[in-house]
Parts: sequence; C-alpha cells; structure tokens
Amino acid sequence: MASSSSLTLSQAVLAGSIPRHGSSNPHLPSVSFPTFSALKSTPSTTTTAASRRRSPSVPAAGRRQAQVLASAAVETLEKTGTALVEKSINTIRFLAVDAVEKANSGHPGLPMGCAPMGHILYDEVMKYNPKNPYWFNRDRFVLSAGHGCMLQYALLHLAGYDSVKEEDLKQFRQWGSKTPGHPENFETPGVEVTTGPLGQGIANAVGLALAEKHLAARYNKPDAEIVDHYTYAILGDGCQMEGVSNEVCSLAGHWGLGKLIAFYDDNHISIDGDTEIAFTESVELRFEALGWHVIWVKNGNTGYDEIRAAIKEAKAVKDKPTLIKVTTTIGYGSPNKANSYSVHGSALGAKEVEATRQNLGWPYEPFHVPEDVKKHWSRHVPVGAAYEAEWNAKFAEYEKKYPEEAAELKSLITGELPAGWEKALPAYTPESPADATRNLSQQNLNALVKVLPGLLGGSADLASSNMTLLKMFGDFQKKTPEERNVRFGVREHGMGSICNGIALHSPGLLPYCATFFVFTDYMRAAIRISALSEAGVIYVMTHDSIGLGEDGPTHQPIEHLASFRAMPNILMLRPADGNETAGSYKVAVLNRKRPSILALSRQKLPQLAGTSIEGVAKGGYIISDNSSGNKPDVILIGTGSELEIAAKAADELRKEGKAVRVVSLVSWELFDEQSAEYKESVFPAAVTARVSIEAGSTFGWEKIVGPKGKAIGIDRFGASAPAGKIYKELGITAEAVVAAAKSVS
Amino acid sequence: MASSSSLTLSQAVLAGSIPRHGSSNPHLPSVSFPTFSALKSTPSTTTTAASRRRSPSVPAAGRRQAQVLASAAVETLEKTGTALVEKSINTIRFLAVDAVEKANSGHPGLPMGCAPMGHILYDEVMKYNPKNPYWFNRDRFVLSAGHGCMLQYALLHLAGYDSVKEEDLKQFRQWGSKTPGHPENFETPGVEVTTGPLGQGIANAVGLALAEKHLAARYNKPDAEIVDHYTYAILGDGCQMEGVSNEVCSLAGHWGLGKLIAFYDDNHISIDGDTEIAFTESVELRFEALGWHVIWVKNGNTGYDEIRAAIKEAKAVKDKPTLIKVTTTIGYGSPNKANSYSVHGSALGAKEVEATRQNLGWPYEPFHVPEDVKKHWSRHVPVGAAYEAEWNAKFAEYEKKYPEEAAELKSLITGELPAGWEKALPAYTPESPADATRNLSQQNLNALVKVLPGLLGGSADLASSNMTLLKMFGDFQKKTPEERNVRFGVREHGMGSICNGIALHSPGLLPYCATFFVFTDYMRAAIRISALSEAGVIYVMTHDSIGLGEDGPTHQPIEHLASFRAMPNILMLRPADGNETAGSYKVAVLNRKRPSILALSRQKLPQLAGTSIEGVAKGGYIISDNSSGNKPDVILIGTGSELEIAAKAADELRKEGKAVRVVSLVSWELFDEQSAEYKESVFPAAVTARVSIEAGSTFGWEKIVGPKGKAIGIDRFGASAPAGKIYKELGITAEAVVAAAKSVS
Repeated sequence: MASSSSLTLSQAVLAGSIPRHGSSNPHLPSVSFPTFSALKSTPSTTTTAASRRRSPSVPAAGRRQAQVLASAAVETLEKTGTALVEKSINTIRFLAVDAVEKANSGHPGLPMGCAPMGHILYDEVMKYNPKNPYWFNRDRFVLSAGHGCMLQYALLHLAGYDSVKEEDLKQFRQWGSKTPGHPENFETPGVEVTTGPLGQGIANAVGLALAEKHLAARYNKPDAEIVDHYTYAILGDGCQMEGVSNEVCSLAGHWGLGKLIAFYDDNHISIDGDTEIAFTESVELRFEALGWHVIWVKNGNTGYDEIRAAIKEAKAVKDKPTLIKVTTTIGYGSPNKANSYSVHGSALGAKEVEATRQNLGWPYEPFHVPEDVKKHWSRHVPVGAAYEAEWNAKFAEYEKKYPEEAAELKSLITGELPAGWEKALPAYTPESPADATRNLSQQNLNALVKVLPGLLGGSADLASSNMTLLKMFGDFQKKTPEERNVRFGVREHGMGSICNGIALHSPGLLPYCATFFVFTDYMRAAIRISALSEAGVIYVMTHDSIGLGEDGPTHQPIEHLASFRAMPNILMLRPADGNETAGSYKVAVLNRKRPSILALSRQKLPQLAGTSIEGVAKGGYIISDNSSGNKPDVILIGTGSELEIAAKAADELRKEGKAVRVVSLVSWELFDEQSAEYKESVFPAAVTARVSIEAGSTFGWEKIVGPKGKAIGIDRFGASAPAGKIYKELGITAEAVVAAAKSVS
Repeated sequence: MASSSSLTLSQAVLAGSIPRHGSSNPHLPSVSFPTFSALKSTPSTTTTAASRRRSPSVPAAGRRQAQVLASAAVETLEKTGTALVEKSINTIRFLAVDAVEKANSGHPGLPMGCAPMGHILYDEVMKYNPKNPYWFNRDRFVLSAGHGCMLQYALLHLAGYDSVKEEDLKQFRQWGSKTPGHPENFETPGVEVTTGPLGQGIANAVGLALAEKHLAARYNKPDAEIVDHYTYAILGDGCQMEGVSNEVCSLAGHWGLGKLIAFYDDNHISIDGDTEIAFTESVELRFEALGWHVIWVKNGNTGYDEIRAAIKEAKAVKDKPTLIKVTTTIGYGSPNKANSYSVHGSALGAKEVEATRQNLGWPYEPFHVPEDVKKHWSRHVPVGAAYEAEWNAKFAEYEKKYPEEAAELKSLITGELPAGWEKALPAYTPESPADATRNLSQQNLNALVKVLPGLLGGSADLASSNMTLLKMFGDFQKKTPEERNVRFGVREHGMGSICNGIALHSPGLLPYCATFFVFTDYMRAAIRISALSEAGVIYVMTHDSIGLGEDGPTHQPIEHLASFRAMPNILMLRPADGNETAGSYKVAVLNRKRPSILALSRQKLPQLAGTSIEGVAKGGYIISDNSSGNKPDVILIGTGSELEIAAKAADELRKEGKAVRVVSLVSWELFDEQSAEYKESVFPAAVTARVSIEAGSTFGWEKIVGPKGKAIGIDRFGASAPAGKIYKELGITAEAVVAAAKSVS
C-alpha cells in the first residue's frame, strides 16, 4: 500500500523511471555510511529542522531507516572541514566557468559569487530527493536571477540529479540540451519554475510558499505535519529593481509567509555597470517596510558560518518571510574581471579562465569534479531517497487515520481530477435569464470549487467586478491560510506570476486570477511564462471590450484578443453565453499544461440557441444554419458578446430568404487543432462570402474571412460613453453585419 | 518681439485661439483687483515661492504688471476665510457628486475625499494659465488615481479652463465629451497625461519632473531661471500597490527630483474593501527607503493648514522628492457611504446625494457654483495670464542675452524640428560592412543627437546590449541632470511610462528607451498609453527574434510583432539593414503623436541592395524584381533580419528562370496608409503566389500572402542554442522559401 502511494505521489511523468522508496520496498538502494552518534544531541540547524519535522507517531521500519540516512547526512556535514566546503564551492564555480567557456555564451559572474550560498543550500540545508525531483514535500529552490543558471545546473549535477549529467553541462546552451540558457522547468527536472525575465522567479517563489502554507493549513493535523517544506530563492539587483518583485514581496509580508527565505545577491553590479548609476535605494529598509525579517551577511564570499547562521535565524522567524542580503563579489575568483560588469554575461576567455584557475588554486581539467567532492555529495542520493521514504511512511500513517484528507491531498499531488467533476458545470437553455458572462463565470467558479479541491484564486482588487469570489470560502490570509479567496490587491503582474508558482507547486492546484482584460497588459510577462512553463493558470478577464462603456479607452481592450491568439501554448477563449462559459471552464480545467484566458463581458448577454459545452471544445462550431449541402449563401462569424449580433443579423438575412450559417469561433487555437474535414464542415472552402464581427482589432481575421469576406471590428481606440452608444458609433451592429453580408454574397 | 515669442511659445495647437499675453500686448485682459500690501512681507507659501522665482534682472513693464496680478492672488488668498475655502471645497465635492449622479457612472469617493488638497493645489499653490493650458512653464498636475477625474474636471472648471465648462461637466462620460471617464490629455486641455491604469500617472509625473530638471539644468542661467516649475501628483492606494510606482519612485529618489511632490491619498479603501485585506506594508518607510522626504498629514479632510504646511515643507526640501501622505475619508460628507468601498466607483444614488447635501449643508441645485466661490476663483484667469506674461517677458530678456539657447529651447517648446535635421541620418550602400541593426541604430542615435536637441533616453540596464549610449553625453544623474543618457535600471515598465511623461512635457522632447524586444511584455501598459495619449516615444527594441540565440525562449520574442501590429496608433518598424534603420528613425522622429517601436537584430546583417529611407516611409516596397508588367511569378516578402533570406531565395529562384519580386514590409501600418494604386503596384491582386518569411508568429500574415500563399514563421516558443542552429531547426531558411515559392507558383 505505502509503496503504491509513494508511486502515485511521485507527482510525475518521471514516476515510471524512478526507484520506489516505500517503507516496505525491497528496492531501496543500498548505501554504506559511517556509524555516528548524531541522534543523541546535535546542535546543527539541519538536525534541529529534521527532528522538528519528525512526527512522533510514525515509527515504521522505513522511518527508522530514514532517520539513519538523514542523520548520516548530518554526520557527514559535521565531518566536512572548511577545506572540503571550499573545494566544493570552487567545483561549482569552475563547472560554471567551464560550461560558459565551452558554450562561449552565458553568465559566469553570478555562479562564481553565489557558489557559497548555493553550496550551503543544496549540501547542508535543503531536503530533496535527486532521483525523484517531483517528490511532493521537497524544499523548493528558485533562482530568480535566472541568467546565473549554471549555478543551479552545477548544484543539480553534484547532488545527483539525472537531468544534469556531465555531458549535459558540456551541452550548456546547445540545441536540445537539458541545460538551456535560463532555467526552464519543462526542460530540466529539478528546476521548479522558469526564470530569466527578472523578478518572475521571486514572484513564483511567493506562489510556491503560498501553496505550501495553504496546503499545510488544509491537510496538516496536530499529529501529522504532512505538508512542510521551505521555499528558497536567490534574487539579484535586477530582480530587486523590477516592480513585480515589490508587488509580490509586499504580499509575502502581508501573508506572513514565514517559510519563504530569499537570498539577495548584493553584488553591486548589473549589466550597465555599478548599481550606483540607477539603484541607490535601501533594499533592507524597503523590505522592513514590506513586513519582512531582514538579515545582512556582509561576507558572502567566504563567510560560510554567517550564511549558515542567517538561515538558522530565518527559520526561527515563523511569522515573516526573510530576506538575507548577502554581499558578494560577482565573478569571485577571477583576478581581472571580478567585481565588474564584464564578468556578468560573457565567457571569461581562455586567458582569464587560466588566471582564475591559478588564483583559486584549481589544477583540474574543465568539468572535473574532484573525487572527495564527488564522494561528499554522493550521500544526497540515499539521503534524498530516505527523506522521501520517511515522508511516504508518514503519509501511509496519515492515510490510515485521515483517509478522506489523504485522498484529496493525493489528488492534488498527482493532478488527477475527481471522476465526474465536469457534471458540476452549470447548463443553460435559451430560456435561462440573460446575464453577463462575468456573472456566468462566477456561477461556474462556485460550482466547480465544490468538486475541485485544487481550485483557488482571486482578483487584483476587482473581485466584485470580476465576480470571482468563492462564496463558500473566506479569504486566504495570514491567520486563515486554509481559505481559497486570494486577495492580490492592485498587483496584476504579481498576481499572474504568483499563480504560476501555485500551479507549478502541485499538478492538482488550479489557480485562477482576475482583472479587467485590458490589464493583461500589466501582467503579460507573467502570462507568457504561464504559457512557456506549462502552468495551467486560468485567467478570468472581464470587461472584455468597449462593452464596458464609460470607463473609456484606457479600460477598453482592442488588440488584446489578437495579441493572445498570436502567443504560443495558450488558449484564448471568448464565450458568448452560459453554455460557452461552462465550456470554456471545462477546457481550462482540462488543459493543465496550457493556460487559458477567458474574456468575459461586463454587459448582459442572452442565452443563445445552439451554443454548447461540446462546441467550445472544438473552438469553432455552427450555432445555427438554414442552408443545406454545406453551401450557405453567407457565413457569419462572431465571438463572445458579438455572437448575439451575428445571430440577429442572420435572422434578418433569413427573413430576406438567404441561407445563412452562424459560427461561434470561441477559441481559434482549439479550432486550428481540428481535422481538415471538420474545418471544411464549418468553413467550406467554396463559400467565400463570410463576415466576422468582434468588438476588437480585425488583425488576423483575414485568415477566417478570406480576401472576399469582411471583418467587422475596431481598429482604433475606444471611447468613454455608455456601451450601447459606443457599439453604435463604432459600427458594431447587426445592421453593419447585414450590409456587409449583402456586399460579399 | 516678445509678443511673437509668446505666441510661438504657446506650445500649442491652441495657439491661434488664445489671447496673447506679452508685455507690450494691448489685448491683455483688463481685470480689476483690490489694492494690497502683500509685497511688503507676506509669510504665505505662495508669495515666498513666487518671489523666489522672480528674477531680479527682468524689470520689464510686463513684469510689473505680472507682479501686481500675482500679488493680487496672494491678497485674495489672505482675505479668503476658512468658510469660503470650505465652500469652495464643497463645490468641488458636489460638482463631482452631481456629474457622477447624472452620468450614473463614475467615482465620487476620491473627489469627495481629495477636494481639500485639490482646492489648495489649484487655488493656492499651482502656477498655471487657464486660458493657455500649454503655457510652457506651468506647474504640472497629474491625477494618478485617474478614476477620480471629476476632481480634476471640477478644478479645471473653477479655474476657468475653456475645456471644462458647465455643459462639459453635465456631459461627463458621454460620447464626444471633454470629460471622459478617466483623464485623457488628448481630449481635455489642462490634463497633462492620460491616467486611469493605476501607477501610470505617478510614473508620468516622474517623467515630467525629470524633464523639468533636465531642461532647467540645460537652459537656466545664473541670472535667468527660465525653466522652473513643480510637478504635483495625487496617487491612491491602488497606485501604491502597482509595481510600476515602486520602480519610478525608486528612480525619482535616486535622481533627487526635488520639485516632484506627490500626495498619497491614504483612505484605506480600495474596490475590494479595506486595504487591510491586501495592503499592510508601511508606505512611509518604503518611501524613506527609496530616498524620498515623507510627510504625514493626519487630517486630510479638514486640516487645511496641515496640507499647506506640508507643501511648504516639501518645497523646502530641494534634493529629494516628497511624498505627502494625506489621510482622508473616501466619500467624505456622505453620511451613509463615506469610508466604504460603495462610494469608490458608483453614483451615490438620489437619496444619498440628498443626504450628503443635508449633511454638508449644501442647499444648491446640481452643478451650481455659488457666486462667492465663482468670484473667488475668477482671479485665476488674470493671474494665470500674468504668470505667462511675466514669463514671456523673462524669456524675451533671456532671448536677448542667450539667443542660441533661447532658439533651442523655443524649438523644444514648440516641437519644431531643426531644418534639414534628416540630413544627419547615415546612408549605407551594399558595400558598407554587414552589421547588426542594433549597432546601426546606435549610429543613427549618435548622428541624430547632434542635430536634435530634444533627443534623450536610455535603456533598462542593457545599454551595452541595446547599443543606446549617446557617446557625446554623460549620464543624466542627480548632480548632472543636463546630460542625456538616462539610466533606468532594470525597470522596463517605469522606463516606458517615464518616457511618456517626458514626451508630454514639451513637444520637442524626443525620448527613446530600450530593452530586449521580448521585454516589451513588462512595459506593454506604458506602450499602450504612449499610443493612446499620442506620446511620440521611440522604443528601441533589440534582440528581436530567435536570432538572439542562446538566451533561449524566455528571451526570444515570437508573438510580439503581431501583438503591436494589432495595437492602434503605434508604428511597428522592423528594419533590415542600415538604410532601413535610418528610414525607421526618420519615421519615428517625424511621428510626434504616434510612438514607434524599432525591432532590431542582435545578429549581423548585410547591407542589402534596393533598401532605402524612402522605402521605409511607405511601409512596404520592392527591393528587387526581375519581372515585367507587374506580373512576377512569385512575390517573396520579408521583414528585418529575414529580408536577407528572402533576397537569397530570390537569387536561387531567378537562377532557375523565375520572375521574382522581393518586398520589404518594414511597417504594416505605414503600408496600410498608402494608396490603393501603390499597394497594387507592390502586391498585384492577380499575383497570388506569395511567400512571406519572418522569424515570428505567422498570425496576421494571411492578409499579405492570401489563401494561396504561404507564411513561413514560428508558431511555437524558441529554444536555447546558437542562432544559426535555431534558424535552421525551425525552418527559417532560404531553402524553405524556395520550396514554398515552388509550391505556390
């Protein structure tokens, strides 16, 4: 049983390829380790933390073995002299230097400066299992300063992750490698999120820490702390300057995310030179203002004990996140380039590599890991397996005592949706009352949250406009982290990137977030990372056109539909009524590796005949047709709030004897994926008389209407006036569709 | 002379319609005002500030008249009892309440709470000329919390601006009115910038203050402070939460923008309720961390003297911007809705309007301005005229002493470009060395800065990658504000919105800003405001495709070209070589009311035969053709770095005897504006064999290539590898073009 849960709980695509580490599992790798006395009383942080996490009520065989292994880790650490630590740190530095040199591309400066904190985190502090990077209860690490990715690749390599072998390091930044130019979760198991665009990483880390706090509050029991990990991040000056980092750190302070520990690599250098030229604020004071605990490690280059002490202190502060400002020298060790921008983003060059080797006393060949360093790190494979085994044993106990909670948590860990969840989706008929799709969206969210334990989210201070409140839940707050309404404040960018972190914490978490559609402009960088990093966030974007009326052109999206239709791996959905809203939610929930944007109306819309949940799944479908033989006189195409207009125009034209087909093109991406046959059944090549109507840019519509068709839309900014007036003035009317249909057919 | 400069200097479209206020101008409006003794020694802030600004060396007749008028202002103020002040403040409140009520839409809460600071600013502190909203040396005011725009409309109305008459207030939020739902500079003279999307306004204000500091440093003389104004802003909790505000306020502190004074309307309420639910940081401490002077006015509702004292203190701090936190009650005066979210964004309703009238003792009809209030405010027309007259006289003196500086400053004020400036653009031949367009861009910037006194700008910490340094200038910094290289740090969003402020400060200022093209995602909200608010910012966006290589998909734009082609009122330019880069700069400089984005390559590109500056102006043009009679066998279309590939493919096809036309489609928007005849000469309708190639999304290309053509592009995310490898793997090659050309022709 425990063995099978452990497999299920491996959260992973990788499940098949990793060894099982259950308490009764005979395949537990055999490891030799020294005898020791550490369990008696060891003052080390690691031991303390490990002991704290041990539940007194899980005395299984596997747990004992785990104790032994974990304690072995402590022992090894205690025996590790500073010389070996320094050698390990230099190994990290040179793996980075050598990989960047071989690629002749990359950023050696950060790994050279941050190697000490990297070493301490991965070798002494963090709990993870290298052979199962998806083990649920692992500590999370995010390199927010993603350009320094060779730091993380070197650490994953030393720790024994299969994703970063020596040959992968040698393929740094090459086509098809596991070691791309910035950390990408979808390429490299062991990398939690995708970073590089600055500030995203720390924001994702806030999302990861939120997820931990939320799940811990929901599933931990007085006798079973089943969810319990830290989230670590390293961010640089660049991340600090980005507005998004201030947004999310303000929230992290507000939420009291005590298990978030962020290292600020204070190296005074950015690409343009000394940070003095653009960045002279007091970061410490700002973080205090944001409600963080702040520690300053003045010697980040060799002050290993200072770093260790800071982490210990950070862990002791449980009601606030901690920023550890670590003053380092960028490119530490390079005699001629350290502490200058030239070491930030280019290979050192053969001569300087040699000089650095001399300077740090490094006699080895490129990519060499000295035997003692290798041996030292080798314990992480058995120790990590033991951590997971210990946790699996704990989970097995938990499952016995709390079967319902365990089953639910398991579904969050594996991402398996509850059977029949889609039956919760509301259904509508043409007789159902007219309503704004934002309201219909709220009906869907509130129906779904009853059956989807992973659904949580909120709005950027527009909950009452976006209609996103989950009525059966309270607010996720510092003291009520088990609740599911997240209050993001007016922080769209932070909201999106926090949701990416939540989505990538556990496959079964389904974060949604909301604002006015036009303000996707504020969070576009986060949305793109959702798409790239396969984070299935649901973007609930209301007030999706000039239909919002009086707020005017600053608030009226025009180009936004087109701009997302052009973005890879994202679904742009614009439902027209209740059935299509339900259909859009169905698509969004099912697409766990592809985010969805729902564009929803502020204004009331009728429930149309012919719309359906199934139709939405196809992206485009016929909602009404009085033609025969797949030969309508004209095809009218609408999306969202304009589908009603297309339907009205069709009624007019049919009165005049025309054979008219009306197509809802709710998602271009889904329609593109349909068979050629299906597409021909909707848009027969022979029928070139086509008119589209959408209250947005016509950009891209030529693909649908063709050169002989006509696209009715808005290729200018909107205006401030009541919605009906703007529709009329800008020609988004049934009359315009009728006239266009006559002109093309 | 002075009269004619004053006209020229009116910076304006409006120039023809406003009275001239020169020292020798007989049309100076006749005004009566009481005799007074204020000049002797008046402790009032206003007088002090006014006296400080008076240059001892401008004793012209106009100056004396101005003194008289300005002092009359002081006198009036001194005679104004608190009762009248309160009446004026209530007038502002009820104009807002009544306008929102009539529109049944809008945000009464902020105007009701901020009326006191609004009154003090517009009635007691700011220098402006209501009859010439474009007077150069006016104090600038930005309502960053733009939803509260009725505050500003009420103030403009009382102050005597022609843009906001009583009938305009009654047309609040209606089609075609001067009083749209958020402040829009292009609709309402007197509104400096376009706000509403939160955080943009304070960012624009930083740009306005930067422009003032820069111009003052360049043009002021020990005996002539010709540039000298303050920039005021009101921002709310929402603005404070947005990351962009932290970015720009960090820069404002870094730059020591002492004449920027921002009021933080601390009312504890946002749309979702009490700010306690999402915003518990210490704003004061954060601003201290950012290097601001911070003052707290605890009673913003009735503490008029506190507000006045704070402004005085703020003005006394010259090396730091000041944040005045003003604690107010949102919806002050409404007995049942004040201090609640319900007053934030909806009309009060007839009953509550009545209750508020009762509560504040307001017996008047809607939109009524009591006579004494009207009389009190009436002085601003003559006083404003006098301010301008005084300044014009000062400028006339300045012009005599410093004719060169005066001529240059005048060109910045009017926006007139120096004759023949475009001759500075570099020219290239096919023999010129191959180069990256980012480098060619730098040649253009450095050539243009010699002839365009208004050109200034910089990069978001990528100057050495974007190639944007102006070599003949140093850095704009606190102590060297006369320089023109602006160091924005890693703050793309702040950078874009600061540039909007710079552009809208004076028509002749030509701000440019730079980052990697993909990071337009971070600043898209600012770019959209450029387009909407007609701020002719030049966006220098390098590393514009997979051609950037190893940094990988987080750094490789795909959908970005399409996303901007769909945005209204912006030019998306993607030059292919030196001539096209020069042509793009020519277009960008000429388009002062339409921003331009230049997408530039990281990689080296050859100088192509057939490209030209003139061609770029048409958006699309033929660079080579071996067909005759406008009947090529196939048309190959490329942009930017792929134009070379199209040209190579054409060579191949021509070797095989094909008649091939190659078209550069450098700007879709400019091409769209050409005559039908010209378009037919480039893309004859009869020639349906068309192949396009562009290293980006194919979204939208159907319009160009038609249903029988083929668009070669990238509809997925990129990858980390050397650029050449990615091009090959993703099929962006001449071979692919040749094959496609054969398949379609």
